[in-house]
Amino acid sequence: MSDLEEELRAIVGTAHLLVDPDLRDAYETDWTRRFTGSARCVVRPADTAEVAAVVRACATAGVPMVVQGGNTGLVGGGVPAGGEVLVSLTRLTALEPVDEIEGQVTVGAGVTLEKLQAHARPAGLDVGVDLAARSSATIGGMVATNAGGIRVLRYGSMRDQLTGLEAVLPDGTVITRLAGLAKDNTGYDLTQLLAGSEGTLAIITRVRLRLVPLLPARAVALVAVDGTDAALTLLAAARGRLSTLAAAEICYPEGMELVRSYGRLPAPFDAEYPAYVLLECAGHTDPTDELLDMLGECAAVEDATVASDVAGRARLWAYRETHTEAINTAGVPTKLDICVPLRELSGLVAVLSETVEAVAPGARTILFGHLGEGNLHVNVLDAGEHAEQVTDVVLRQVAQRRGSISSEHGVGRAKAEWLSLSRSAEEIDVLRRIKSALDPAGVLNPGVLLPTPADDNVRG
Amino acid sequence: MSDLEEELRAIVGTAHLLVDPDLRDAYETDWTRRFTGSARCVVRPADTAEVAAVVRACATAGVPMVVQGGNTGLVGGGVPAGGEVLVSLTRLTALEPVDEIEGQVTVGAGVTLEKLQAHARPAGLDVGVDLAARSSATIGGMVATNAGGIRVLRYGSMRDQLTGLEAVLPDGTVITRLAGLAKDNTGYDLTQLLAGSEGTLAIITRVRLRLVPLLPARAVALVAVDGTDAALTLLAAARGRLSTLAAAEICYPEGMELVRSYGRLPAPFDAEYPAYVLLECAGHTDPTDELLDMLGECAAVEDATVASDVAGRARLWAYRETHTEAINTAGVPTKLDICVPLRELSGLVAVLSETVEAVAPGARTILFGHLGEGNLHVNVLDAGEHAEQVTDVVLRQVAQRRGSISSEHGVGRAKAEWLSLSRSAEEIDVLRRIKSALDPAGVLNPGVLLPTPADDNVRG
Repeated sequence: MSDLEEELRAIVGTAHLLVDPDLRDAYETDWTRRFTGSARCVVRPADTAEVAAVVRACATAGVPMVVQGGNTGLVGGGVPAGGEVLVSLTRLTALEPVDEIEGQVTVGAGVTLEKLQAHARPAGLDVGVDLAARSSATIGGMVATNAGGIRVLRYGSMRDQLTGLEAVLPDGTVITRLAGLAKDNTGYDLTQLLAGSEGTLAIITRVRLRLVPLLPARAVALVAVDGTDAALTLLAAARGRLSTLAAAEICYPEGMELVRSYGRLPAPFDAEYPAYVLLECAGHTDPTDELLDMLGECAAVEDATVASDVAGRARLWAYRETHTEAINTAGVPTKLDICVPLRELSGLVAVLSETVEAVAPGARTILFGHLGEGNLHVNVLDAGEHAEQVTDVVLRQVAQRRGSISSEHGVGRAKAEWLSLSRSAEEIDVLRRIKSALDPAGVLNPGVLLPTPADDNVRG
Repeated sequence: MSDLEEELRAIVGTAHLLVDPDLRDAYETDWTRRFTGSARCVVRPADTAEVAAVVRACATAGVPMVVQGGNTGLVGGGVPAGGEVLVSLTRLTALEPVDEIEGQVTVGAGVTLEKLQAHARPAGLDVGVDLAARSSATIGGMVATNAGGIRVLRYGSMRDQLTGLEAVLPDGTVITRLAGLAKDNTGYDLTQLLAGSEGTLAIITRVRLRLVPLLPARAVALVAVDGTDAALTLLAAARGRLSTLAAAEICYPEGMELVRSYGRLPAPFDAEYPAYVLLECAGHTDPTDELLDMLGECAAVEDATVASDVAGRARLWAYRETHTEAINTAGVPTKLDICVPLRELSGLVAVLSETVEAVAPGARTILFGHLGEGNLHVNVLDAGEHAEQVTDVVLRQVAQRRGSISSEHGVGRAKAEWLSLSRSAEEIDVLRRIKSALDPAGVLNPGVLLPTPADDNVRG
């Protein structure tokens, strides 16, 4: 065992330094199994002080680190390129009491979303962000990647929930900002800078979040519309009329067919329609009447089915939420996560299939996503050897429309080479200058977010 | 006229380069008349390209700049220390059409809040931030200082309205990020970094903001309570029960007495109470019943008066909103703007008067502010020569309670020497590294936010 490993073992204890390849294995490959690499070792610190000591030891030795939370990322940002010390944060599971006066809570970076939800709900409060990976995704990782999900329309992304954090800088220095002040104008907002920085500037060890009211009364509508433009008309009506609007999702006939076949679900309507919108309303009192009134008066509604009870709501959500499983069952998709201004959405949807087929004949393009933000998950089946070309042509269509090449998932290693489609050369230069200012030796997550030459990835 | 002035004149035209002291005068002193300094000249560019050319010229000459919007700041961040080129942005008044699909708008940095409100309201939309200086305060300045105001409880501060911006870096490079995407995880969020950076990292020239629904139905309650703790009990009840809650303000008997005398207002209640809370609700439908129900069931309510009509609401708001004028009429106050965690508010209020009187015998401490954020405007009358000591002892009481020494107003020149009470040495080091990364020569707003030795302030 080298000097560094000895030092790390002294910090975290023998049980939490994993050198054996069998023990490292679960950490070295992401859950989609698309990204994998060998870590020098895996180190599992228990708290901020141990993280700081680990970082100091690695920085002194000039050995790069890769930071991992629940390993539920989709862009390879939390797995090694090769040779890094992998710092796993899943032992940072402290849950401080819910602060009911402020409606906030402070938790360790390794707490899962599901654990935090269970912690907050008895106080009548809830986490503003929710997503399908809730049982594994950690709060620290969700902040580092600015996670989105199905409630962004109502409460914003993870950065909007943040009121403070604690983090370890690349030299082992700890910065702590956990008072949770609602208003504080005393210099640059480091909390917001670290949100979405994907572990490249500091390691987030504790997080303070605002919580939202746990809303007991809900109603869900699945609405048939005549296409993406009609869906946007419905969205505008819903936003203007429904103060309880909590989600607005979209899917299309190709995905609906896969979902129905996979889940053996009945047809939701007597006919097939060009697009389907799922709306959810949530409030202190039953929002069903408000929702029905709006649907009755919106000319974009071709047909609609509404449910207010738990089982009925789950039945309607299934048409949207089982898209991922249904697609994965039908093949190995090329997965993209893009966002365009709403006025560009219809034009993009109109050309996506033909754009894909031009480079990958016979490929099937399935779209679904978060209508409220113009955020589509583009899944391409049967792209075969053309996956990279598909990615390239789709992301260029998005960039032409001033869109984002990564709406929710981050850049990671997967999208780094396309970063210049979403950020100008001038912006990327500023990003690099910020990176150098905080991590001059480049020891944190090299190769993530900002591309570096392959031979620079491992310095150890 | 020097080479630099000739160059600036060629960029903006003779009419917009002000060298004569009489013409510069209005720009060189802030509206409180507490901060003043001589600029080398005042330059008034018309658009982003002219701002970029001005910045390039100054940077090349090694001459520092100070950036000014509506000159309504309260901490001296927009007036010269001495010898800078003052870049005034009030000519950047472009108002792009309201984007009703996204509910967003892009405007020039020099547009006043009032002009933007008038621009948005015909579309049924409104600006999420509102404040008393609306006729002069510019949107660019409000973003650069992350302005707050009376609606933060509902919509957050200025940074929460921001979906993008355009800015000129200290070397004249322009970065533009105005697509207004609701979700975009492609690298560090420069928009959020510049919000609240007080002109020290870049000059904001255009801003894209989300707008909020213009809510037609409003109700206001002035509530008498038994002190700060009871006010917080009422706040918790209002937050838990009122989905329409839009503002929660607090004032005390000393301020109420000044306000009543200044405005010849009747006593709002038959007796005097230890504290008064103003609540406003706003919605698509009349929130009066919801407000009355909550007040009827909250044990912290000693007495209450409610108004739903325009005149009645204005009558109740006057008890809170005329505090500033009433105090200024009574003397020259020492003004502080602080914020503490809500659980610390009562303890702070209990000791503030005695803390002030210990260093300034006979001084009167008047408190009012934004209850929802624990944000108090501390106004001390008759502090005489002890103003600096008053500032120091009050800010130390705030820091002991993990509060912010500047909740809304920013750091500017006024609070720079106290920055270490709100930010750790480690954080300030990171702030300095970010400043150096973006402005290595220190040409933008030297002496603002991060203190520099006095003899470094002017390099020209």
